[in-house]
Amino acid sequence: MIIVPEREIARLVSAVDCFAAVERVFASMAKKSASNLPVVREAIGHVDAIYGVKSGIDRGGLVLGLKSGGFWPNNASRGLTNHQSTIMLFNADTGECRAVVGANLLTALRTAAASAISIKYLSRPDSKVLGIVGAGHQSTFQLKAALQQRAFEKVVGWNIVPQDLVRLEAVAAEHGLPFERVDLDTLGAQADVIITITSSFDPILRAGQVRPGTHLACMGTDTKGKQEVDARLLANATVFTDEIAQAVTIGETQHAVAEGLVDASAIIEIGAVINGDHPGRVSAEEITLFDGTGVALQDLAVASVAVERAVATGVATTVDF
Amino acid sequence: MIIVPEREIARLVSAVDCFAAVERVFASMAKKSASNLPVVREAIGHVDAIYGVKSGIDRGGLVLGLKSGGFWPNNASRGLTNHQSTIMLFNADTGECRAVVGANLLTALRTAAASAISIKYLSRPDSKVLGIVGAGHQSTFQLKAALQQRAFEKVVGWNIVPQDLVRLEAVAAEHGLPFERVDLDTLGAQADVIITITSSFDPILRAGQVRPGTHLACMGTDTKGKQEVDARLLANATVFTDEIAQAVTIGETQHAVAEGLVDASAIIEIGAVINGDHPGRVSAEEITLFDGTGVALQDLAVASVAVERAVATGVATTVDF
Repeated sequence: MIIVPEREIARLVSAVDCFAAVERVFASMAKKSASNLPVVREAIGHVDAIYGVKSGIDRGGLVLGLKSGGFWPNNASRGLTNHQSTIMLFNADTGECRAVVGANLLTALRTAAASAISIKYLSRPDSKVLGIVGAGHQSTFQLKAALQQRAFEKVVGWNIVPQDLVRLEAVAAEHGLPFERVDLDTLGAQADVIITITSSFDPILRAGQVRPGTHLACMGTDTKGKQEVDARLLANATVFTDEIAQAVTIGETQHAVAEGLVDASAIIEIGAVINGDHPGRVSAEEITLFDGTGVALQDLAVASVAVERAVATGVATTVDF
Repeated sequence: MIIVPEREIARLVSAVDCFAAVERVFASMAKKSASNLPVVREAIGHVDAIYGVKSGIDRGGLVLGLKSGGFWPNNASRGLTNHQSTIMLFNADTGECRAVVGANLLTALRTAAASAISIKYLSRPDSKVLGIVGAGHQSTFQLKAALQQRAFEKVVGWNIVPQDLVRLEAVAAEHGLPFERVDLDTLGAQADVIITITSSFDPILRAGQVRPGTHLACMGTDTKGKQEVDARLLANATVFTDEIAQAVTIGETQHAVAEGLVDASAIIEIGAVINGDHPGRVSAEEITLFDGTGVALQDLAVASVAVERAVATGVATTVDF
């Protein structure tokens, strides 16, 4: 059994690696050669933690496994990350445990890869201004990955706690880009691409604030009840997602579907666009919206890369199991 | 992170340890201080394998984790066990991965512990003859654990492939007990306690073959469609189980409930008997039937013991994770 500890991930796997791995597995999902299995996610009744398991099988790449962990809200006060994840990969031919991989950074990278993929396939090629709603820990990953996809000239940001925007300012500065703290009206009026990455339970961005031609990547909603944007915004948009079943139940799309504004049959898997089976954006006036819910196969794809690299570079610990 | 490889389990954990650990967690389940989470179990569409994840939390013992793996029917031809399982334990306070434990032998031991617990609490104290239906790999574990619970004087056995009964004969001989290969009528007429441990999809034992006063432990049915005994046998019996939700969906009880012969509200959790909240058997004429479906908390309980012992005896491999 191969062990790849959390501390090794940063030097084994890049954002570019994660982009390629997630793009490939989204394509496999749309071709039905990769499947996510039912998600387990429950309050454990101890220290307010939410624990869960996401599992999946990629029959093409023969990747089988799970990510387990969750949200421990009191971890920060102990100097630990609140989100804790570990990935197990199994030998798909035999069921033996093949690898255990620390998955905190991988989770951040695969989530950033998903919105970056949506920007590559759905945003206008001439997009110049990137808007970010939310400035928590994950927002910097989303911003960095997004900046690789278009020749952005400016970043605008809004956050409920404005001083946290320094995180995004720093990343923009690293990339030599100006950054402006703006209100939501201004953000919508200026941005060609908007990423929402909050843990909001109430819509932040209103439909009227978003211009025709905008691409939105809504990345924060992963639970029943969470909501980042006005459901009417989805009614005005062409809606894409990683996995339709998850989008309509725990993703941003849950509200628009519940209110009858969007029909599940109209939602498009981003993998179909990657595969060339759907054209993606069809006009410069269209609003495209990607609902990134986060699926096991993303996790397994990036963990597989980490394991390959760890083995190739001699960083992996191998335990006779 | 602590690693306890499969090969170390046999010398770390005994059947007696597993009995105690499973008895304790069954009691916690009935007190609602321990919960199993929804089970994932799916055909993966590769090499006919069934893959799954069972997870749970014991808030009393602060044991959180999962067992993952499944059934790979072609493994035997490669010299591997068809059933493959690995357990992950998490720190319930922080969500960090605490241990990875090889769980093939542990699964066999915890399954044997469950039927032995049912024999301790539900069979007549004067039980003399033990009947076993099924003589596969798992049957020897069930037999060994059962023999610790009553002063059995004889073992009788039936199997669809009679020559496999040599397995049970050998165990009986080790314990100085006579063994008889019998037909099902004779088995029912002689046995005070019957364990069924098959992977049958059709009832083997008929209601008329079982005497008043018998205790049955039905241990083979863990999937929709499997069935070891006539559903009318459950209608004639007081039905106990590890977990009611699992019994009525994937356990032996599924058929009796579907046919309206048993009401889910009449099924008793064995933990309630362990806790003294239910009397268990109330007469020497009663037929008691334990539907052992197999729950995550059994796995986590025995894995915890393995980890404790591995640490105490210096057998554990510790990896900085």
